[in-house]
Amino acid sequence: LTGELRIGIAGLGTVGGGVVKVLTERAGSLAGRAGRPLKLTAASALEVPEPLAPMLAGVPWYEDVHGLAIAPDVDVVVELIGGAEGVARSLVEAALGAGKSVVTANKALIARHGHALAATAEKAGVALLFEAAVAGGVPVLKALREGLVSNRFGRVYGILNGTCNYILTEMEQTGREFSEVLADAQALGYAEADPGTDIDGWDTAHKLAILASVAFGIPVNLDAVYVEGIRSVSSVDIAFARELGFHIKLLGITSDGEGGIEQRVHPCMVSLDTPLAHVNGVLNAVVAEGDLVGQTVFEGAGAGERPTASAVVADLVDIAANRGAPPFAVPVADLKARPVQSMDARRGEYYVRLMVHDRPGVLAEVARIFAGAEVSIESVLQRGRAPGSIVPLILTTHDTEEAAMSRVRKQLASLPNSAEEPSLIRIETF
Amino acid sequence: LTGELRIGIAGLGTVGGGVVKVLTERAGSLAGRAGRPLKLTAASALEVPEPLAPMLAGVPWYEDVHGLAIAPDVDVVVELIGGAEGVARSLVEAALGAGKSVVTANKALIARHGHALAATAEKAGVALLFEAAVAGGVPVLKALREGLVSNRFGRVYGILNGTCNYILTEMEQTGREFSEVLADAQALGYAEADPGTDIDGWDTAHKLAILASVAFGIPVNLDAVYVEGIRSVSSVDIAFARELGFHIKLLGITSDGEGGIEQRVHPCMVSLDTPLAHVNGVLNAVVAEGDLVGQTVFEGAGAGERPTASAVVADLVDIAANRGAPPFAVPVADLKARPVQSMDARRGEYYVRLMVHDRPGVLAEVARIFAGAEVSIESVLQRGRAPGSIVPLILTTHDTEEAAMSRVRKQLASLPNSAEEPSLIRIETF
Repeated sequence: LTGELRIGIAGLGTVGGGVVKVLTERAGSLAGRAGRPLKLTAASALEVPEPLAPMLAGVPWYEDVHGLAIAPDVDVVVELIGGAEGVARSLVEAALGAGKSVVTANKALIARHGHALAATAEKAGVALLFEAAVAGGVPVLKALREGLVSNRFGRVYGILNGTCNYILTEMEQTGREFSEVLADAQALGYAEADPGTDIDGWDTAHKLAILASVAFGIPVNLDAVYVEGIRSVSSVDIAFARELGFHIKLLGITSDGEGGIEQRVHPCMVSLDTPLAHVNGVLNAVVAEGDLVGQTVFEGAGAGERPTASAVVADLVDIAANRGAPPFAVPVADLKARPVQSMDARRGEYYVRLMVHDRPGVLAEVARIFAGAEVSIESVLQRGRAPGSIVPLILTTHDTEEAAMSRVRKQLASLPNSAEEPSLIRIETF
Repeated sequence: LTGELRIGIAGLGTVGGGVVKVLTERAGSLAGRAGRPLKLTAASALEVPEPLAPMLAGVPWYEDVHGLAIAPDVDVVVELIGGAEGVARSLVEAALGAGKSVVTANKALIARHGHALAATAEKAGVALLFEAAVAGGVPVLKALREGLVSNRFGRVYGILNGTCNYILTEMEQTGREFSEVLADAQALGYAEADPGTDIDGWDTAHKLAILASVAFGIPVNLDAVYVEGIRSVSSVDIAFARELGFHIKLLGITSDGEGGIEQRVHPCMVSLDTPLAHVNGVLNAVVAEGDLVGQTVFEGAGAGERPTASAVVADLVDIAANRGAPPFAVPVADLKARPVQSMDARRGEYYVRLMVHDRPGVLAEVARIFAGAEVSIESVLQRGRAPGSIVPLILTTHDTEEAAMSRVRKQLASLPNSAEEPSLIRIETF
């Protein structure tokens, strides 16, 4: 705990640049809080963005990023390259193996290999921290791991992807369709040119798998996550949701139930009176239900240069101040795999939208299918009539099981009067 | 970091009982997370509540609580006696002086003597932690001190007293008056028999002074807090607030402005679309505005046996795991007193309710007073007419200064047609 904490940074994109700036501009304040200086002693990247050049003058440069893992004057490697495999993975493995601590914002890497990497870190007696990987600037992993350490969690859920939340919020506020809003979001830089990781739910799944591990003491298990994105959410659904008293949000939900650990990502209808219903735009929010504290909400910026840098630097200060904690809250040997609750066992209410040819008898056919699966209908909505043309038919159900709803959906899809794939959105009560 | 962390507990009331239960029932899980066992090795209280007796069997008992401070087999003293002076203070001073760490839930003590106690702890090289003192089960001090360590804060504010928030929520939802709802809250145990500390704003002030110190690196300065409670909030105000698009909440607000550090506690009108507007009942919430992360919200249970015990035990685990941090985020020598922004300099909009004799010319008199103080009126509301009897007259202002509004209030109070003291509620925009 004497001398400076020597930091090697790998990757100088948006987040890397933010980290360099914060470390440089706030060196004095950070040293005061950490108890010793934090110093950049090595860097590696494909190129140095112009504004960073003065801050990196004099910092030893590594053409091969793997050099950071064996550099003698580096205590911590900050990995900001990204990707679950390739250079990011091999760098982190090499750094931990060489007895260096690692800080990363890489959710894909931690969601895929977190357990193995934590084991390597533990063996080497070094830190592996990734606060920035979940909910960006909101220190929710630290809260679950340390602040709420004495709680047993029943459920943890949240809005974990700012791009999806921005798109859904825009769709709701403007009435426009998904594809239009996505195009705008791409133009504004809120969505990537290749948006699949975000809008198909994978980014949320990575973060959820990490949250589930920290909350429930299980090895990260990305393969156990049920994933559905927001491409099929239509402005019609959002309008009907509003009418029924709901917002539509893409949530990650994990819970510890009788059947095991549940992990699922999909669009949800949430009641207007839950805290998550009012989390709009690019914001993130996580709700943790602890048996001692009850429902605790953490909300804030989920991405971006400065919020992410805030989290990365906080991890570095923790390491500098020697505030250690097991990466997943408990020692690796105590992480115990648990049964996976199948999606088929999900219980709750459902919203179903059919696009049907408006002909006599359609409702009777639909009702017969629900009855056949023993799914009880709570409400039916149909706006306007347009005999012969295609109209939306909206149904909500009472509490039922996913398995039954899957059967219903399949049968609805094959109705002669059904004009397109039925849309099904789960209603979540918190 | 080897052997057990030996804990002496002082006070076995609601929170003390909760701490004993959590330490006993979760010993295994806590040891796994802390890296070593946490063990109760001493206790002192006026009496032992029956349900705790089996858990305390074999734990050495101290008739004089000060014995804990010098007990050889105690590493940490947990102070749960309460009160800013007297036994609580002398115990904490003695324990820190004797080189023992201290964990406390005592906001009054920390708000009054936090700076001096932190200096004693620092000199002795021990920990002083008080997460439970602010927002109960919500780990917001840890978040400000560690998770958001790299941020500079512009403003921190929140709903910090569950009793007041419960009363205001009930008043809004039922339309009943303050005194009735308070009586009910007392019967339900949500308010104390002597409710002054809560409803006059002092409990909120204690917590705000602690938040301000951690956020802005100033010595705790309770005397600098402007304090106003909720006794004068009437159901009429709540109804008119609703009509104007606001909820009424008792907030603690601290900010770092041009004139210095502002700290104030008073009822506020907050717009329905801010996160705090939806924090109801006994819940607490804190919003921290950091320059890197932006607006970050922490919400959850602010009091009660289990949430408070959750926070106390988390502090104990931090000590067991050797996760040290300066009590107020920076070393005591770095805590710098700053100018106090006077309440007179507060700028914003105001809501004013007059109870006036409904006679011709009243509005003209009122308008003249506002004009004389150069306060611009935004809206005037008057419901129904009742010539000769007393009716509410509601005004809201454009942005103005507290000093001007104080003059307006005084003049309004002395109007011949004014039937009672005018009610003035500040409108806050976040």
